[in-house]
Amino acid sequence: MNVTIVGLGLIGGSLGLALRQSTLGGTPPVVTGWDRAAQTIAAAQTIGAIDRGATTLAEAVREAALVIVATPVLAVRAIFEVLAPQLAPGTIVTDVASTKVQVLQWARELLPPGVAFVGGHPMAGSEQHGIASARADLLRGAVYCLTALEETAPAALASVEAMVTSVGGRPLWMGAEAHDASVAAISHLPFLLSAALVQLTASDPHWPALGRLAATGYRDVTRLASGDPAMHRDICLTNAPAIRERLHELSRLLAEVAEHLEDAAYLEALFGTAQDQREIWLRERIGVA
Amino acid sequence: MNVTIVGLGLIGGSLGLALRQSTLGGTPPVVTGWDRAAQTIAAAQTIGAIDRGATTLAEAVREAALVIVATPVLAVRAIFEVLAPQLAPGTIVTDVASTKVQVLQWARELLPPGVAFVGGHPMAGSEQHGIASARADLLRGAVYCLTALEETAPAALASVEAMVTSVGGRPLWMGAEAHDASVAAISHLPFLLSAALVQLTASDPHWPALGRLAATGYRDVTRLASGDPAMHRDICLTNAPAIRERLHELSRLLAEVAEHLEDAAYLEALFGTAQDQREIWLRERIGVA
Repeated sequence: MNVTIVGLGLIGGSLGLALRQSTLGGTPPVVTGWDRAAQTIAAAQTIGAIDRGATTLAEAVREAALVIVATPVLAVRAIFEVLAPQLAPGTIVTDVASTKVQVLQWARELLPPGVAFVGGHPMAGSEQHGIASARADLLRGAVYCLTALEETAPAALASVEAMVTSVGGRPLWMGAEAHDASVAAISHLPFLLSAALVQLTASDPHWPALGRLAATGYRDVTRLASGDPAMHRDICLTNAPAIRERLHELSRLLAEVAEHLEDAAYLEALFGTAQDQREIWLRERIGVA
Repeated sequence: MNVTIVGLGLIGGSLGLALRQSTLGGTPPVVTGWDRAAQTIAAAQTIGAIDRGATTLAEAVREAALVIVATPVLAVRAIFEVLAPQLAPGTIVTDVASTKVQVLQWARELLPPGVAFVGGHPMAGSEQHGIASARADLLRGAVYCLTALEETAPAALASVEAMVTSVGGRPLWMGAEAHDASVAAISHLPFLLSAALVQLTASDPHWPALGRLAATGYRDVTRLASGDPAMHRDICLTNAPAIRERLHELSRLLAEVAEHLEDAAYLEALFGTAQDQREIWLRERIGVA
């Protein structure tokens, strides 16, 4: 089976490494890779994330049965435009972008009728990015969201699900709107809090002194702020209403907390519940602990 | 040298373990421990955090040259009241509480004139708490804030600084007000964000589904929410104005972000700066990385 990965960053590179060690379709697939940076293609080949690199998108997808677009969200549209006339009928296309409503709309608009599209979003990642951080086991045990277009044939859905399983992911089918609203709460909002906390503290006139006191708690709460700015910019731009709603909810809660900072019973209830809920979540999501 | 630790939780227990391996005063000090729970005293003895347990506070401090109060902030006042008539002139008292203004005020009010007080706050910890989580190396490399009363004799300041150094801490002298304002930003605010994020997501009607999608990013941003509710309640109650100011600053920033979720240039600048600032901080604070 020929698989093409378009965009060889953390996720694209990790998918390549994992696929080349998998037995998707009986034997490890042949993985072709393309990236806008030639040196990234070379690096992907060096670490074994791809069998061969392609210098153009047309060449990259010529023999592909499955094309995985693994670029930041906003680049997906342009990639679809370039790919559309190059894809043979029967090709299956999927993506790994962090938001799905917009991507499904572009797939519907831009990809030709004979090409099947299935949206994908692996719930794995790291504040690291780029091919140098790729790991064959990045997706092992990770929930991997899949979103179908109504018209996509069951065989195509099954193919993408098989690809996900072959790299160790746990497929979870859901609608694009539900996906985007959910990740706004558990992924996009946490990133924004992380970045806002760094912004607030590091722009403080006393920052050098504050920074000396900051320790492991600050390090962990701000970890996501080290993530790729372009990726997170695209996420906000393609999921603004859902994220805005979550920001407003959080602001209301923080205003409530600010009013109750001298109210022992309120604080105990809030902190006790949060502690309990997180422990329950950790136990149930043992894979991330 | 006889050292008494009052309160055998994560910090008290870790101090005991470290002190008993140290050479404070030439040879390892003899550590006496007291806790309101008898089973905690027994556990501290079992893991080697104390040489002997005491059943009353009076007994605990009878021969102490140095008394370390390692309870949550609000318990410190009652401990000072009970200890005051028991402390021999020349005894040095320190604490490890997360806020300092209030503790220094209690020390001034309640401790007898012949007893020297030095406020302390090790910038180390964990979402874990209790004697079972104590580690001899918890304070190794950690910044350890120290705050003096004006009247405290230099010899007492030097003794507490020597204790800090003997357990691997890095002493940092600062005023109580500056300390409390600083930790509001880099410690108390991050905890509140962590707890608020859990509260917001776990009380969402779709939480079971959201929880399945939440992964390592969510885990790290919410880590502090697993911290001891009583400790964090006391922190808020004794540092409310400084924390409130930081919450308001953060709310203003989040409102600004919410208005700019479709502004690519704004988002890039914010996320790029946060990424850069965090990387610089990580490099400079290599001990916490």
